[in-house]
Order: sequence, then C-alpha cells, then structure tokens
Amino acid sequence: MLKESDITFLKTILTFWDHLNPNQKTMFLENAMPVSYKRGENIHRGENDCVGILLIKSGELRTYILSEDGRDITLYRLGTDEVCILSASCILDNITFDVHIDVEADCDVLLLKSSVFSQICNENIYAENFSYKSMIDRFSDVMWAMQQILFMSFDKRLTIFLLDEVTRTGSNTVNMTHEQIAKYVGSAREVVSRMLKYFENEGYVNLSRGKIEVIDKVQLKQII
Amino acid sequence: MLKESDITFLKTILTFWDHLNPNQKTMFLENAMPVSYKRGENIHRGENDCVGILLIKSGELRTYILSEDGRDITLYRLGTDEVCILSASCILDNITFDVHIDVEADCDVLLLKSSVFSQICNENIYAENFSYKSMIDRFSDVMWAMQQILFMSFDKRLTIFLLDEVTRTGSNTVNMTHEQIAKYVGSAREVVSRMLKYFENEGYVNLSRGKIEVIDKVQLKQII
Repeated sequence: MLKESDITFLKTILTFWDHLNPNQKTMFLENAMPVSYKRGENIHRGENDCVGILLIKSGELRTYILSEDGRDITLYRLGTDEVCILSASCILDNITFDVHIDVEADCDVLLLKSSVFSQICNENIYAENFSYKSMIDRFSDVMWAMQQILFMSFDKRLTIFLLDEVTRTGSNTVNMTHEQIAKYVGSAREVVSRMLKYFENEGYVNLSRGKIEVIDKVQLKQII
Repeated sequence: MLKESDITFLKTILTFWDHLNPNQKTMFLENAMPVSYKRGENIHRGENDCVGILLIKSGELRTYILSEDGRDITLYRLGTDEVCILSASCILDNITFDVHIDVEADCDVLLLKSSVFSQICNENIYAENFSYKSMIDRFSDVMWAMQQILFMSFDKRLTIFLLDEVTRTGSNTVNMTHEQIAKYVGSAREVVSRMLKYFENEGYVNLSRGKIEVIDKVQLKQII
C-alpha cells in the first residue's frame, strides 16, 4: 500500500488524474511502487531495459547517449517533481532512439510499470497526452544540448556548466573530476583540464584534486 | 473553397478528423489554404515566423538549425503526406527552441493557420494529441541527426548521405555542390571535398562541377 504522502504526490504529478475512471485510478494506486536508487546506479541502458515511468520525489537522474567507443553526451537532468518517461521507451511507439539513464544523486521515486502505464495510455487519451507532453519537454532539452555542443565555443560551454552546477548545488565547489566534467560537456578530459587551468590562471577558479572552486563568478559570467 | 481532392487529403492526414465536432470541421475546411512554395524559399526563420501547420501534398521541406556564424545542421526532411508542425512553433508552449525551414523541392501544401489550429487544439484533446505525436516523430529524427553528428566518423556520414540521396532521387547522380553537402552533413566544404576526392580515387564516385555520380554502390556500402 502507498503512503498517504505518496498518493498525494501521485495525484499532483499525474495532472490527468481527474480524467481517469475509478478502475484506472485503482490500477495506478495498486501498481505505483516506491523505489530508492543509489547514486551511480544505471536505471536504463539502451533498448535492453524498460523499467517504467519514474515520478521523482527527490534526487537527480541524468539521461545521456553513448557512442560505440564509450563517449557519452548528457542530454538533460531531471529532479524533484519531474517525470522520467524515456525509461519506458519500449511502450513509446514513436520513440526510435535509445538513451541511458543514471542516478546522479540518491533518488526516491514512484515507479509506474511500463505495462500498466501503457494500458492506461491506450484507454485514456488524457494519460496518453500527458506522456507526449512529458516527452516534448525533453525534446526542447535535447535541442538545447545539441546547440550547446554544435555551436558554442568550448569556454562558454564549460563556464555555463560550472555556473549551472554552482547554482544547482548551492555551493561554490564543484565536486567532480575533469574526466566527469568532460562527459557532461561532451568533450575530452585534456580539453577540460586545459581550459580549467586557463580559468585558474585568470583567477576565476581554484583547482584541487577532484574539485573546482568557483571564486570569481562575476568574471566567469563575462565569458558567456 | 477547397477542391474535393484537398478535402480528402485533409481528412486523411488529420487522423483525428472523426473526433471533431461539426463546428471544428467547418473551421478547418474554411481555413485550410492551398499554398505553393518554390525551391529555395525560406518558410520559417527562428522565432520570427509562425505561418502555421503545413500538410505536404508534394515536394520537400528541410528543417535545420543555424549558428551565429552561419553554419547550419540539417535536422530532418519532410515529404509527401507528412506534417510540418514546427512552422507553428509559436503556438507550441513546450517547444522552446527555434528552427529554420526551407523548401528543398517545389511544394504544394495545405496550410492551417496557427491561430485556427491552436484554437482547435485547445478545444479538442484529439487534435492536441495529434500535434504532440507529430512533434515526437521529429524528436526521433533529431536524435538520429545528433548521433550521426556526434558519433559517426565523417566518411560514414558522407557515405550515408550519398546513398540516401541516390535512393531518394532514384538517380545515381547527386546534384549538389560540396558546399551544399557540407551543410547537410554538418561539416566544412574543405572536409567534404577532401573526402569526396578520396572516394573518387577509390573508384566509388565520379566528380564533376556541381555533381557527384555514384559509380560503385557496393564498395561504398562497405564503409558504413
């Protein structure tokens, strides 16, 4: 049985709740499952998984694509109150691409199994509509990522990444290796290290093992 | 007034037709407009235009993004019986990116003005659903384009482009300059010219002014 707080959360996130019939409501309530994931876990791996829709109560998920030679490109991140839908890609007829989804920060989610969600989407156009809307929000995210990668000079991309991280975590320190940052910004470790060294020389950041401290946000923002 | 053939076309493409009420049907019939576009015309330019939904009777449209320094990257092409929806991006709340749309081959379309389509989408969830579905198909196209650009070595990308063109046009000759091809494959003219020269030396293609003749498809396919 779901806790009262989970039921409230479910009804809030599934904005089509009032359009469900009693059977469909019961089906959601009986099948939604509270699940916790640990940082570093892989939730979805290309076409091999189809765990279901994840309603994120807390934590962070990162969606990325992976090349044959192991490079990865972050498409977007999802956090509290957001819906991870591509983890149910097997039920999405018109999604023909595959992504990977990792846990970036420990997550509590409500999991709706693909089969259950799929059945309700087939029966109820409001549920179907909701799933489409969730996907289209991600379409905009992906276009943003693509434009960043294709068109922005690398110093801008790295700066935006650092400032986003600082804003997101509320700390001036980014606890990541250059290798990790390279993955997030779609570049190589050497390129990241070189640019960070330049930022350090300019007095924008302090570098130490596994972390970057942003010390002059004002100057850094000038780069963008 | 629409011709009988246009009315049939409208009803076929708008798969939600039977879910419209009589007023909504009349609204579509009275507002759908047959329009012809010439090759080379620009139909949609970033956030400045919002012509409406285009139902393509014949011809071809190309959707691309443009960088500040003028590079362009093809996202996808649309042809007969397809629906161009991003040309109405102003009415799509959750689309926050901008694209450009050019006419690649002379087009006959039925144009549904943004305001009319928007009103019906607000009233009718089946129409809204249709617009989302049309967008999500393009999401998959864009992911494909992105993966091509990010992860494939350039010889593969160029080969796929040439073979796609040959298949699409049913001719062994691709009538394009190296400059144009560079735009389509997201590269620079010099890079395209160098690779094509290599292909010519290998006996895969013959080069002449403004065209590439594919002479050994079998060998070319080995590259992919």
